[in-house]
Amino acid sequence: MRHSVTKNWKKIGLSILVALAAAMPVAAMEAPIVPIPLHVDYDKKKAELGKVLFMDPQISADKTVSCHSCHSFDHGGADPRPVSIGVHGAKGNANAPTVYNAYFNFRQFWNGRAKDLKDQANGPLHNPVEMDMVPKEIEAYLDKNPYYHEAFREIYGTNPTYDDMLDAIAEFEKALFTPNCKFDYYLRGQTELTPLEARGYRLFKTLGCITCHNGVNIGGNSFQKFGLIVPYRWKPSFPDRYDVTHNPDDRNVYKVPTLRNIALTAPYFHDGSALTLTDALKMMAYHNLGFELEEDEIVVIEAFLKTLTGETPAILRQD
Amino acid sequence: MRHSVTKNWKKIGLSILVALAAAMPVAAMEAPIVPIPLHVDYDKKKAELGKVLFMDPQISADKTVSCHSCHSFDHGGADPRPVSIGVHGAKGNANAPTVYNAYFNFRQFWNGRAKDLKDQANGPLHNPVEMDMVPKEIEAYLDKNPYYHEAFREIYGTNPTYDDMLDAIAEFEKALFTPNCKFDYYLRGQTELTPLEARGYRLFKTLGCITCHNGVNIGGNSFQKFGLIVPYRWKPSFPDRYDVTHNPDDRNVYKVPTLRNIALTAPYFHDGSALTLTDALKMMAYHNLGFELEEDEIVVIEAFLKTLTGETPAILRQD
Repeated sequence: MRHSVTKNWKKIGLSILVALAAAMPVAAMEAPIVPIPLHVDYDKKKAELGKVLFMDPQISADKTVSCHSCHSFDHGGADPRPVSIGVHGAKGNANAPTVYNAYFNFRQFWNGRAKDLKDQANGPLHNPVEMDMVPKEIEAYLDKNPYYHEAFREIYGTNPTYDDMLDAIAEFEKALFTPNCKFDYYLRGQTELTPLEARGYRLFKTLGCITCHNGVNIGGNSFQKFGLIVPYRWKPSFPDRYDVTHNPDDRNVYKVPTLRNIALTAPYFHDGSALTLTDALKMMAYHNLGFELEEDEIVVIEAFLKTLTGETPAILRQD
Repeated sequence: MRHSVTKNWKKIGLSILVALAAAMPVAAMEAPIVPIPLHVDYDKKKAELGKVLFMDPQISADKTVSCHSCHSFDHGGADPRPVSIGVHGAKGNANAPTVYNAYFNFRQFWNGRAKDLKDQANGPLHNPVEMDMVPKEIEAYLDKNPYYHEAFREIYGTNPTYDDMLDAIAEFEKALFTPNCKFDYYLRGQTELTPLEARGYRLFKTLGCITCHNGVNIGGNSFQKFGLIVPYRWKPSFPDRYDVTHNPDDRNVYKVPTLRNIALTAPYFHDGSALTLTDALKMMAYHNLGFELEEDEIVVIEAFLKTLTGETPAILRQD
């Protein structure tokens, strides 16, 4: 017995799911989730420079906030705090999404306002509640730093520029892919799921989660409304599509986040309001499907989600 | 009914506890735990410079590891990884203890090999599996960085020196005190504990935990053996007192860690082998008291331990 929020909502929810499923391209239905590639081409020298830049808080106004401050490698490339904390202790308005596999997202940021990683990296550097810097100051700093000066000269053939810095950071982020999660092994026919995981994957499909969470990033390839059936509270500070388009229909519309490494990246959602996977599943079912999940359904879906934790990116390992 | 590991061990354990209690100075018995002071004098300019240095991975050999990498403010000033990861991905041999309130410890490091914070800060900078730097390289870097150059000139009246850098970092760490945990309010007579917390505190005393965990840091003021009753596995790589004294009796002897903010600083022990507070309590009872705790005893002690979480240090807040 499932407890309906209301029967009507459930019906509406199911109708929408059926409609969405019908509208999906056939190819996506055949192979809805795609393994992370085992190899991604990137420029190793640029990426190593980008790694140093990524860790460097000197490129923030108060010299205490780096990219890594909010995209922590101890937390699957995401931020364990509900919202990020920027320079001078300023609170941001969003839970920083994982930088792992971000290269595979169709757009960057919760509201997709950046078209690629380089475009994204530009954002927090300027944001007054994130790093709050101006390009000229960063360039002057990089130029005076012998390591950076030499690395930029060697790689880009010029003194450090802001644009080349974004390029190097983006190249490093391209290297942050996490192949070989258990589910990818399963997709490649190299392992079996346990009965619990298999039931979780089946439920993930039959409940319709896969309608939005599919592709190589199991998400990250469409915008969807948070609160499709039961509206979710909205604040003007939320970084939603409305913030980009000013279309009222885009309130609480966000890029669907990736589910890769989801077991590592608590808390969840744009506002970090779900502290655990269990909370996140309950909220998703309630707001976007219109019903409450049974305990055993949560257990099996979590078992499936835990098969999505991939390898630590090679560029972060000693081997 | 408590399940004895063996009756003899339990008897030995109790005898030792009685003997230890009898040997304790009367003053310590009267007021075994002391609140964190509400104010600690520190030089604000030095501390602000120290904060920037603390966050700066440029002072490590591969420019990716800062003090904050292993003493994370998102984890109560400690490291969420069982052992720390240094430059070039090298694994350390210990779980980094919290830097919060470290100023109040009688010695620094698990084996107390540093006499104070400045002496401690010197360690990881040189350690080949931590930051692996030489003072001259750091001085050259600081001198070329306009922010550091000016800050050192202003504060110390000279160009940046390695010794002054350690001084500034130590001053920042002095500012990392966390007053006003619930238990400190209770000690000052400003609040009551809940019945659960009160039972936990009572058990904390009657079981003898307080024998070692007392004073302003509820620990951090003596060396004790891990495995007093049931020996704990030992590895030559463990950072114990033996590593300092080469006295075989000092194997697995460590500085008693602080219990302040303990709910935030998982995993626990020198080797990070206890992933949760529950695990840590079970291991402490088994190895150092010689018996297994009941589930309800664990629940109430944890309730007490959670009253030890203090305020975020003021120097890390916006106010």
